[in-house]
Amino acid sequence: MAGNSFGALFRFTSWGESHGPAIGCVVDGVPPRLALTEADIQPYLDQRRPGQSRYTTQRREPDQVEILSGTFEGQTTGTPVSLLIRNTDQRSKDYGDIKDKFRPGHADFTYQAKYGIRDYRGGGRSSARETAVRVAAGAVARKVLGSGITIRGALVEMGGIAVDRDAWDWAECGRNDFFCPDAGAAARWADYLDGLRKTGDSCGAIIEVVAEGVPVGLGDPLYDKLDADLAKAMMSINAVKAVEIGDGFETARLTGSQNADEMRMASGRPSFLGNRAGGILGGIANGEPVVVRFAVKPTSSILTPRLSVTRDGEDTEVVTKGRHDPCVGIRAVPVGEAMMAVVLADHLLRHRGQCGG
Amino acid sequence: MAGNSFGALFRFTSWGESHGPAIGCVVDGVPPRLALTEADIQPYLDQRRPGQSRYTTQRREPDQVEILSGTFEGQTTGTPVSLLIRNTDQRSKDYGDIKDKFRPGHADFTYQAKYGIRDYRGGGRSSARETAVRVAAGAVARKVLGSGITIRGALVEMGGIAVDRDAWDWAECGRNDFFCPDAGAAARWADYLDGLRKTGDSCGAIIEVVAEGVPVGLGDPLYDKLDADLAKAMMSINAVKAVEIGDGFETARLTGSQNADEMRMASGRPSFLGNRAGGILGGIANGEPVVVRFAVKPTSSILTPRLSVTRDGEDTEVVTKGRHDPCVGIRAVPVGEAMMAVVLADHLLRHRGQCGG
Amino acid sequence: MAGNSFGALFRFTSWGESHGPAIGCVVDGVPPRLALTEADIQPYLDQRRPGQSRYTTQRREPDQVEILSGTFEGQTTGTPVSLLIRNTDQRSKDYGDIKDKFRPGHADFTYQAKYGIRDYRGGGRSSARETAVRVAAGAVARKVLGSGITIRGALVEMGGIAVDRDAWDWAECGRNDFFCPDAGAAARWADYLDGLRKTGDSCGAIIEVVAEGVPVGLGDPLYDKLDADLAKAMMSINAVKAVEIGDGFETARLTGSQNADEMRMASGRPSFLGNRAGGILGGIANGEPVVVRFAVKPTSSILTPRLSVTRDGEDTEVVTKGRHDPCVGIRAVPVGEAMMAVVLADHLLRHRGQCGG
Amino acid sequence: MAGNSFGALFRFTSWGESHGPAIGCVVDGVPPRLALTEADIQPYLDQRRPGQSRYTTQRREPDQVEILSGTFEGQTTGTPVSLLIRNTDQRSKDYGDIKDKFRPGHADFTYQAKYGIRDYRGGGRSSARETAVRVAAGAVARKVLGSGITIRGALVEMGGIAVDRDAWDWAECGRNDFFCPDAGAAARWADYLDGLRKTGDSCGAIIEVVAEGVPVGLGDPLYDKLDADLAKAMMSINAVKAVEIGDGFETARLTGSQNADEMRMASGRPSFLGNRAGGILGGIANGEPVVVRFAVKPTSSILTPRLSVTRDGEDTEVVTKGRHDPCVGIRAVPVGEAMMAVVLADHLLRHRGQCGG
Repeated sequence: MAGNSFGALFRFTSWGESHGPAIGCVVDGVPPRLALTEADIQPYLDQRRPGQSRYTTQRREPDQVEILSGTFEGQTTGTPVSLLIRNTDQRSKDYGDIKDKFRPGHADFTYQAKYGIRDYRGGGRSSARETAVRVAAGAVARKVLGSGITIRGALVEMGGIAVDRDAWDWAECGRNDFFCPDAGAAARWADYLDGLRKTGDSCGAIIEVVAEGVPVGLGDPLYDKLDADLAKAMMSINAVKAVEIGDGFETARLTGSQNADEMRMASGRPSFLGNRAGGILGGIANGEPVVVRFAVKPTSSILTPRLSVTRDGEDTEVVTKGRHDPCVGIRAVPVGEAMMAVVLADHLLRHRGQCGG
Repeated sequence: MAGNSFGALFRFTSWGESHGPAIGCVVDGVPPRLALTEADIQPYLDQRRPGQSRYTTQRREPDQVEILSGTFEGQTTGTPVSLLIRNTDQRSKDYGDIKDKFRPGHADFTYQAKYGIRDYRGGGRSSARETAVRVAAGAVARKVLGSGITIRGALVEMGGIAVDRDAWDWAECGRNDFFCPDAGAAARWADYLDGLRKTGDSCGAIIEVVAEGVPVGLGDPLYDKLDADLAKAMMSINAVKAVEIGDGFETARLTGSQNADEMRMASGRPSFLGNRAGGILGGIANGEPVVVRFAVKPTSSILTPRLSVTRDGEDTEVVTKGRHDPCVGIRAVPVGEAMMAVVLADHLLRHRGQCGG
Repeated sequence: MAGNSFGALFRFTSWGESHGPAIGCVVDGVPPRLALTEADIQPYLDQRRPGQSRYTTQRREPDQVEILSGTFEGQTTGTPVSLLIRNTDQRSKDYGDIKDKFRPGHADFTYQAKYGIRDYRGGGRSSARETAVRVAAGAVARKVLGSGITIRGALVEMGGIAVDRDAWDWAECGRNDFFCPDAGAAARWADYLDGLRKTGDSCGAIIEVVAEGVPVGLGDPLYDKLDADLAKAMMSINAVKAVEIGDGFETARLTGSQNADEMRMASGRPSFLGNRAGGILGGIANGEPVVVRFAVKPTSSILTPRLSVTRDGEDTEVVTKGRHDPCVGIRAVPVGEAMMAVVLADHLLRHRGQCGG
Repeated sequence: MAGNSFGALFRFTSWGESHGPAIGCVVDGVPPRLALTEADIQPYLDQRRPGQSRYTTQRREPDQVEILSGTFEGQTTGTPVSLLIRNTDQRSKDYGDIKDKFRPGHADFTYQAKYGIRDYRGGGRSSARETAVRVAAGAVARKVLGSGITIRGALVEMGGIAVDRDAWDWAECGRNDFFCPDAGAAARWADYLDGLRKTGDSCGAIIEVVAEGVPVGLGDPLYDKLDADLAKAMMSINAVKAVEIGDGFETARLTGSQNADEMRMASGRPSFLGNRAGGILGGIANGEPVVVRFAVKPTSSILTPRLSVTRDGEDTEVVTKGRHDPCVGIRAVPVGEAMMAVVLADHLLRHRGQCGG
């Protein structure tokens, strides 16, 4: 209710601040007898981990996950899985200068206004550091989904430069610093970011996440539609300002005859000749790949001075020092994948509960 | 859990099918001692009501709302408010031909796949008729918000034709058939729709909803962010495929120095020099207008024959007769306003619960 | 959240006041393709219906239930089932004299204090009339449970007179006015109640509900234990002040060696040689009959004058005229059965969701 | 949903097994700007801590609590409070002999049946060790309630020996090993327990928890009644089999004229001349002390051999070695207090949310 949990049957509750001793979450509702050890979770955390290229924050966090409960002899027991990640590289002194100034575009101001108090060190609870927890929960969710469902994400646009969809190669995502499926775009982004970093500025990005193998029937009408839950999940990620399913905003510019994905029988089952719907009709998965895209705004912590006010109500200017991602969108790729996994795992259990099977 | 409720503290539960005896909802969590009669709700239903222009379905529904509980002598009592709207003009025979065929782009197929049964008459539960219930719940939510918060919606793009923002006039929305704030665009849309109707086709649209006067501090980090809940609310509306907050996808194309709304003291309180953020930072309202936009895909029930399959697994073609909106986006405007009201009312009560005031 | 819903996956939301136009509920999460018509629900309502003997209120309510949604051609569709029961015999004038006086032991005072307003006619929302809704929801829950689970209730003590357990005959419950399994006790209760009615007083009762055939494994540790949910369900019934599972309070007077139900293999599966645990261990069903008992306090609306205060803060005396049950415990029997059914149906779906099968 | 969370607005989620590395919980919804450090929590844990007298298990656990998040400079920030307690004295080898045998009366069998796997070491998740987490969460809840609400618990019956209510002295609870308010009863219990321990048997107990200063109006009709939530809270504690409010089962033996607490104006506000209702009418607090009693069954881990079965379906006998409380009811006193605090804190926030003030 206070906003730190996600999901209904598969549900995780997140806690922790950027500069506290640790962050973590409790994942409840994990079915029993799934193989689960730290080794199932760590690779996803490693993908998101900061400090791996010159394009992400230079904060060094090993992000080693510990499972504190919910497994026995390498298997889940049906009881809550508590995950813990220690914070090791918090240079709190870097952040002292923003103790009393609100960064424009940042949650500093709204947290202060809502709660009358805030942990200003590194953004406290509103720090993107919290997304490590989402990635850990997502890794558990993937175990629930099993090997039949594949979830992959990619950065598809940065600084106004989009990938060439004809050049799309999922394998390429693992070869560059951007989770970019198009080697050409990755090269252009590298140049663009190098330029930005010199000016101390930042940029936004668009991420696409695709789930294949999603069973027909997942999702609940009307208010817990699969796409509604995905929209909430993605919009809840730090700095996200927009979400679309399938062809999204583009569908508003089409006619009904252009937009509707026609159907034919194929291999003995109904299938679709297109996927403008992004795999979801009426809030329920139709068997095609589930496709979500979301926009990440530019990092608001930048070196360029911006007009602001102090906590005491004085006009001021603010410059954010410290170590920040020039494009938080890059590390949002594994986060988006994780949230897709969590939403699907939750709906898988919900569907099984109400409809069996 | 099965998807027919929305909200936590202010929570409504919807029920009813297009061709059943009635539709309705139960609104729980309404604070006591608010003035509330049917006359507070009916005007909003009248805005959404079908059959009011040649651009919406010709189904004639008076959509008279009845309050069955939760008020006493014209005031709310704190107990659940049950609202009922009778269905009066259900010509079930119109729909007999789609009993066994799935309309491409429609929820026919997914409901059948999920539940193994569906009420095919007029779309059953997946019909846009259900949105009347949202509008009714939204009218109750407005009473909770009080007169200090203003919620207004407008159609801002149809068939690829966008409104001229310099010509924006909220009053104009009440003068044309499209909730369009720009008389020039309204005229062009009328021509466009007349053309579409002749071919039996349909089109999509983009809606913008703006809430002014939202108190600073509404919204909960991290997973129940105000924008995350708005994204879910809007994406849950029939045929919606995309949602954005403030400048949305556009922010992904900006630099941090361009995007961050700078701050200055004004009238003794912190205020913002821009509103790219759409009134929300870190998931919490910052005092600026809350701005949401969403895309409605074209109606999937069209007269143009489309390839499909039957329930028995045969290839077929389908043509949807019956009375349908050529652009469901038009009537989505009051629905979007209603969902905005519901989300804000819920967060108002949640904020008061956790933070007082 | 505001207290009018029960259950998680199988969830019903109740609404309505004693003297409003109707009462009802929305049952969400009902699995699809269960046979369900009004005829499945009405018999349970008829059991609880007032005015059937001289031992219950003389208010005459036919309590005809209408299904407004969620079924198609006699089967559930997986969408919410809306149930409506009209109020027909509300003689509001009977209650005018308690408009400004609080009945001792009644919710009059607390509703007024909480909400600052109340519908005083017949108890409004706090009237036992609302329990008809529970019975209707319970009838739907029984369809979810299927024929393998049997739920039966009995009155086991009234006015200090307990049934003879050696004389227990379930069939006898249907033959007397008290749902009493012991004909001898029923006769003594009749005498006792006739005496009470002459003095205008009322009495309390103890009800026992037994569910047989409950699958091993239903229930969730730790906070949603099957017995914890049953305790909440029963304590939520009007006038209930105590709940126990199995041997309940008696177990506190036993030693561990006396209390633990020993186990042996029988018919190839583990079974128990006793059932002091009431079919639940660690919050999870163990395959033995689930046994719950609850105490109903005497009706607080009595003809005997009692000291009270007025809404304006004056000392006064109050005498409750109108038509009241001398022992609300009698009609609580079908209500207790219904709540048992609801709790089990909810846990059945939850178990299936998390653990499959 | 999977049963490890309690509360709605004030909500904690518990995790951990008896013999894992740690146990803990996340408390969400804590209002901001409350003073909170480990020193506010530790005294309550110390009360419950094992190994403090010869009447509780000899397991030695320091039960040092660590706050990992949600506070800043000694104050809550409105973000989730993560609490961690390390397990230090787990002698796993003690429990190896019950790996394959089900203890009669214990959750061993039902966990195995539900999940198909269990952490058998020390009862795993079903161990009473988890109640330390409840006590920690309860300490946070007390901060929410503030100093105006006093919560105290006492053991009132053990082995059939009840306290003398005329001798009741709250201060005495702190002077003996039993939280007993009557020095005479405490002496008799000491003798009784010494006898029991020699035979390796165990016994049950009854606990009473009283909250004074609860504001009129807390509680929600109809399904989240304050007493219904208390019943659930107490019944969810390990080994509890019965709960009653106020005079509980005794009210079923009274007439209406005997049972109803009469009212008079006193000090300018309505008050009650008795408190058979235990401070709750219609599910809402009436301003009198809230009184709850619950029964704890005897510890099922005893040295007396009992008939049982093995996991492989063979008849067997089981004797539980290891270190166990002869009467788990003793340490249930601070646990009951904690659950009272949690329920009240949750309803305080809920009431504030819906009704303001």
